Amino acid sequence: MQTVTVPLGERGYDILIARGALARLGADCARLGLAQRCAVVTDSHVAPLLAAEAMASLGAAGFEPALIVVPAGEGAKSLRHFHQGHDQLAAHRLERKSFIVALGGGVVGDLAGFLAATHLRGLALIQVPTTLLAQVDSSVGGKVGVNLKAGKNLVGAFHQPRLVLCDLAVLRTLPEREFRSGLAEVIKYGIIYDAALFARLERDLTAILARDEDVLAAIVARCCAIKAEVVGQDETETGLRAILNFGHTIGHGLEAISGYGKYLHGEAIAIGQVAAARLSQELTGFVPAEVARVAELFARAGLPVKVRLTTAQRGRLLAAMRQDKKVSGGEIKFVLARRLGEVVWGQKVPPALVEAVLTTA
Amino acid sequence: MQTVTVPLGERGYDILIARGALARLGADCARLGLAQRCAVVTDSHVAPLLAAEAMASLGAAGFEPALIVVPAGEGAKSLRHFHQGHDQLAAHRLERKSFIVALGGGVVGDLAGFLAATHLRGLALIQVPTTLLAQVDSSVGGKVGVNLKAGKNLVGAFHQPRLVLCDLAVLRTLPEREFRSGLAEVIKYGIIYDAALFARLERDLTAILARDEDVLAAIVARCCAIKAEVVGQDETETGLRAILNFGHTIGHGLEAISGYGKYLHGEAIAIGQVAAARLSQELTGFVPAEVARVAELFARAGLPVKVRLTTAQRGRLLAAMRQDKKVSGGEIKFVLARRLGEVVWGQKVPPALVEAVLTTA
Repeated sequence: MQTVTVPLGERGYDILIARGALARLGADCARLGLAQRCAVVTDSHVAPLLAAEAMASLGAAGFEPALIVVPAGEGAKSLRHFHQGHDQLAAHRLERKSFIVALGGGVVGDLAGFLAATHLRGLALIQVPTTLLAQVDSSVGGKVGVNLKAGKNLVGAFHQPRLVLCDLAVLRTLPEREFRSGLAEVIKYGIIYDAALFARLERDLTAILARDEDVLAAIVARCCAIKAEVVGQDETETGLRAILNFGHTIGHGLEAISGYGKYLHGEAIAIGQVAAARLSQELTGFVPAEVARVAELFARAGLPVKVRLTTAQRGRLLAAMRQDKKVSGGEIKFVLARRLGEVVWGQKVPPALVEAVLTTA
Repeated sequence: MQTVTVPLGERGYDILIARGALARLGADCARLGLAQRCAVVTDSHVAPLLAAEAMASLGAAGFEPALIVVPAGEGAKSLRHFHQGHDQLAAHRLERKSFIVALGGGVVGDLAGFLAATHLRGLALIQVPTTLLAQVDSSVGGKVGVNLKAGKNLVGAFHQPRLVLCDLAVLRTLPEREFRSGLAEVIKYGIIYDAALFARLERDLTAILARDEDVLAAIVARCCAIKAEVVGQDETETGLRAILNFGHTIGHGLEAISGYGKYLHGEAIAIGQVAAARLSQELTGFVPAEVARVAELFARAGLPVKVRLTTAQRGRLLAAMRQDKKVSGGEIKFVLARRLGEVVWGQKVPPALVEAVLTTA
């Protein structure tokens, strides 16, 4: 088992990475001094595979969990499901020391986390991420929330979990497309923070795609450690934490204009990262050879690296990017790369250049 | 003008108490370094009286405020209006440095505050409380949220305002019943924290009921100072802050079983405080003469001090109290008085005694 600690003082917590971690859920929660009543939030894909084991582990440790199942897919990240979830939590009569377990991918983690952030003004949250993307990214760092029609993640909170359990064995249950989507966030850590990780991904990609648990354990732990370091320095994204959004400005825009669901998040940000690498070549001296390595690694991982848009679609994409939370004074800001492992944030990019990169890509 | 500072470190803020404070809104916001786009949330009673002045003050200071008007009454504290409010904020394209002004009573402050706590994961909040109750209580301290069918304030957050502006002149616009309701929270501060304040209220009640602005200025400032002191020591209610709930366990229960709206909040907690005083006589040595002073002051202020319930209603009231957030391990905990100005919290009270006090009152 590997343990990564997120250094946030009294809000600090551990990420445990191990094969079979799900079986420890009840015992680990028991050590946190929480109330008996609790809830497991999961989705309709994960529930038949893993809910019974999670409920049994909690029951064996003396807890009384309610099970809340939401429909699989991005549609569950809505204020409608937020409302239904609160009604279900109230019906189970949770108390202030109760807790919520998020058992699933990023959507479940974001919805369950936002429920935990706001039920009775804040309950303890245990993240049990079951996708690669959630294990290396969304379960760590405390960003929780839901989407509006107007855009993604426009409503939410910062609410750190008390514990994150990453079970490598459950990654075997992931559909191929979803596993590859998770690799887009893994590759991102190499680009923004760790050139050695990037080189390792280039080297070990075959074993990773075969879901070799030893290789994955090391990589998940390294990604979590990077995220923990960044979040530990800037919990609420007043500065450094913005680097985690590399590729996300265009990626979120693509998700918005294509209707959440056409692209998986990892697919959208793969396109966004390659586009950001090209913008970096124009603006921050990212050399063409490294731009090519970036595009090639995403392609080898089976991820899209370009998108064909009509002029009208490009217009809608730029409008969607202006709706993004990261806008300040009406300007769109980007994270751009200087070299592999080093990025700068808050870079203003002329809309015409964004359009040009999207046209020629 | 009087200024009370809430001592919460980097989340600390000032409460400004003055006649005509509303006219300063724009200029005071300009000093906080916020973005141009902002929103004023108010209700259908307050909007015709005060929205134009608030919008004009913000506009004159260079801001671009959107106006969001919700229906007057407790019904606006719902996830439905929360959802609509977020859609309206998104349509105005607020940015991370944007802010929300809560212009109204406790309902508006709680809803607007919860919108601010969660839009783009947290925007600055300016409280401009327009009722006595909101000025001395709900606008200060950062508790925001909405109700569920299952109970009051079950969904919410802690989100401190950046500034609170209490305009004493606007209290003239309050209906008599609502003004008297606010006095229930004022009297509470005397009971829980300041016997001299209690004696002053006994002495000056006639001037207070005539809404003498000089007398009110001193009293509002003293109540805010007590709340600031308590919140400064225990922001998220892990201990001391619980004393602010004196009378609220029964009060919230009454509001829940009678449908929010029959009793104004202040009326419900007046009944709750008199009942808590009687429980205190049984359990914590609160002397009968002081119980009588408590009941008499509420009565002189025109507030209800007793309630006639059927056996079935008493049963529903006890059930509603068990649904309260303050429940821990299934036990109902009360704040009880030792003497005027001094209370203890976390007191377990046998349900039979609660029932007895409610029956004989």
